[in-house]
Amino acid sequence: MPSHSIPRPARSWVPMRQDHPFGIQTLPYGSFTRSDGRARVGVAIGDHVLDLSAAWPALAPAEEDLFSTGSLDRFLAAGPSSWDRVRSTVSRWLSDEREREHVHGFLLPAAEAAMLLPFTVADYVDFYASEHHAANLGRMFRPGTDPLTANWKHMPIGYHGRAGTVVVSGTPVPRPRGQRRTAEGAVTVGPSLRLDIEAELGFVVGVPTTMGEQVSLSAFDQYVFGVCLVNDWSARDIQAWEYVPLGPFLGKSFATSVSPWIVPLAALQEARTAPPPRSPRPVAYLDDSGEAPWGLDVRLQVSVNGTKVSEPCFADMYWTAAQQLAHMTFNGASLRTGDLFASGTISGPTEQSRGSLIELTWNGREPLEIDGGRRTFLEDGDEVVITATAPGPAGTVVGLGEVRGRVAPGGGRGAAPREPRHSERQR
Amino acid sequence: MPSHSIPRPARSWVPMRQDHPFGIQTLPYGSFTRSDGRARVGVAIGDHVLDLSAAWPALAPAEEDLFSTGSLDRFLAAGPSSWDRVRSTVSRWLSDEREREHVHGFLLPAAEAAMLLPFTVADYVDFYASEHHAANLGRMFRPGTDPLTANWKHMPIGYHGRAGTVVVSGTPVPRPRGQRRTAEGAVTVGPSLRLDIEAELGFVVGVPTTMGEQVSLSAFDQYVFGVCLVNDWSARDIQAWEYVPLGPFLGKSFATSVSPWIVPLAALQEARTAPPPRSPRPVAYLDDSGEAPWGLDVRLQVSVNGTKVSEPCFADMYWTAAQQLAHMTFNGASLRTGDLFASGTISGPTEQSRGSLIELTWNGREPLEIDGGRRTFLEDGDEVVITATAPGPAGTVVGLGEVRGRVAPGGGRGAAPREPRHSERQR
Repeated sequence: MPSHSIPRPARSWVPMRQDHPFGIQTLPYGSFTRSDGRARVGVAIGDHVLDLSAAWPALAPAEEDLFSTGSLDRFLAAGPSSWDRVRSTVSRWLSDEREREHVHGFLLPAAEAAMLLPFTVADYVDFYASEHHAANLGRMFRPGTDPLTANWKHMPIGYHGRAGTVVVSGTPVPRPRGQRRTAEGAVTVGPSLRLDIEAELGFVVGVPTTMGEQVSLSAFDQYVFGVCLVNDWSARDIQAWEYVPLGPFLGKSFATSVSPWIVPLAALQEARTAPPPRSPRPVAYLDDSGEAPWGLDVRLQVSVNGTKVSEPCFADMYWTAAQQLAHMTFNGASLRTGDLFASGTISGPTEQSRGSLIELTWNGREPLEIDGGRRTFLEDGDEVVITATAPGPAGTVVGLGEVRGRVAPGGGRGAAPREPRHSERQR
Repeated sequence: MPSHSIPRPARSWVPMRQDHPFGIQTLPYGSFTRSDGRARVGVAIGDHVLDLSAAWPALAPAEEDLFSTGSLDRFLAAGPSSWDRVRSTVSRWLSDEREREHVHGFLLPAAEAAMLLPFTVADYVDFYASEHHAANLGRMFRPGTDPLTANWKHMPIGYHGRAGTVVVSGTPVPRPRGQRRTAEGAVTVGPSLRLDIEAELGFVVGVPTTMGEQVSLSAFDQYVFGVCLVNDWSARDIQAWEYVPLGPFLGKSFATSVSPWIVPLAALQEARTAPPPRSPRPVAYLDDSGEAPWGLDVRLQVSVNGTKVSEPCFADMYWTAAQQLAHMTFNGASLRTGDLFASGTISGPTEQSRGSLIELTWNGREPLEIDGGRRTFLEDGDEVVITATAPGPAGTVVGLGEVRGRVAPGGGRGAAPREPRHSERQR
């Protein structure tokens, strides 16, 4: 059900290989700087970036301030009619040969663009929407019981993460320190020994709501602009010790990385696919059986130091993004422009489709062979890259780009922190 | 150990009763509008407000833009030396008779100021730092086991809440809807039947840090500007069904109310008091035994429909605010200007000092007698007011003002929400 329909794209006159994931079918938005340090909004096209902050006021007929701040915030807030108008305008600019002479001067090689966090993250919510992921963790940590908690199939379980530590792809991730409990029950302090990743998809809210409003399943497209890749870094040892009863806190809050290019929902119409069967039928506000429910056929690749370790597919997710948003607002909580909600780890039914190291190594018991050695959890210097693609119109491929991050040695900078250099036993 | 020492305040020339909690010893900051709708920063003095957005550029020697946006954001970010300079300047303006003729014109009656949310809330973290509160809930929900979880005395347990639904005192709070499970195990949907409050203190971060930095116990004053009152509204039925394993989500995210006046730490030097004994001794980064540890002798009153129901005291809190901040940043998570962290429900050892209705009514079994009838949890139209005071210099009283909120009937507005009018059984 494409709600933001645009003409079937022709090819772009921008030179690129035919199957480029950032062809005219994709047109994702990001924020970047060049050597002058000024933030600009750009659209990726092949291996180039269209400087929209410069091109829009020069060439477009209206809303000339839409990209003047250099972040996507104003554009996100502008809503579906602006999203459609800009997408169809940029699509025409980049596909119609007659526009070439006007538009060409606003292109730059992607290699010259230093990517920034594309929007101001308002609230960050992280869901837990893969049945396979939730069940795998249940089997590891609560063997002999039902792997899913009693509530799991009744609602998309989620929690709020730290918006202030959402960083753009490429930002180094310092290994967090924290408390953990040893197998013998002693409390120790030091750098996390079980640093993990979570491969996720993130959804970016554009249009705000007011307190008391709810967003129904069918209204999703009126509020959500697009999608990015998310690596929700997780310190499993810190998390395991802290999370009862109020949930993950310092085991997650040190960093969450996002891809720099936000792919609009309009580019993912062909990727809509039926979600897996759900049982029991959810309560009415989550019941999408009369709604043409849709998951997304987005295929991810996770690699560590250049070795592919997993290929999760978002189509395996139990709860859809529309259900997540309907749930998140059912209590009347308002949305703000820039709210980011992520799916939770994307894990499928096979071993090769698990989206976290704790699953891929079965809690560290089955190390992975990667270039650079064997890994259970991440070592300092390890680089994790998550990429993804989805089917586009007419056999094209829509790219979601990548989210990349390298583990840096633990910090410990600051105003005279008094923690010991190495872990210490509880006195 | 006052680090922001200012001269012992004289009395103000602004007419007020002698024991006014907003005397010259307090000088809290807020944001307000008058009839023109423009946001301004103000300082409360007695029953008046000094319009600092107007007075500062007219009368002060430097940083004339500090209050020009009408929110506290810029001032918060400016750091301790600016905080000290502004406080001593305003204190002089309002106490020195010779300043009266210059300053008088910038005063307005407090009744003419419509208070706004005083700063942009960046991330909102809620702790769980009262041993009495945590133990009371443990006794109710896990009878026969240790009332505290194993981690509780090793670290300040906390979680991230929803920053976008932090609202200023006076904002109506729509009753949230959500899922709950009945005693018989059925899943139902409808307005919360167990709407509660939590009386808390909130701490407002001014100076940001970068990722990887840690804020030690002794550096607290370099980062935190001041204190407000917090009512962390809680839907106990929604929370009970959703919170395993990722913590509170929709049971909390619908609204959090804060007082409009931020009291600077500088006004609370005389209120510093020893925290209760802690055992076991915490790990080094939380060990304040060599630091002159301080709680705050802030006394709260909670009333429902005009009847006082509780008098919690912040001095009873097990974990101090400095420990909370040291914990929150120990993993390297960065701070932003406007981060708000709240203490968690303030409950003392006596029945009269419990800061939530679930404790005051022992999970609804012992209703309260209030004007308007008996209450277990809140009914539509109920108004909750939390006020607080602390000892100031020379026998004065420092007021924290109030946080007030009235329960409105449940919302259910929005883009064609499909939930049923009344609760429905799981099909």
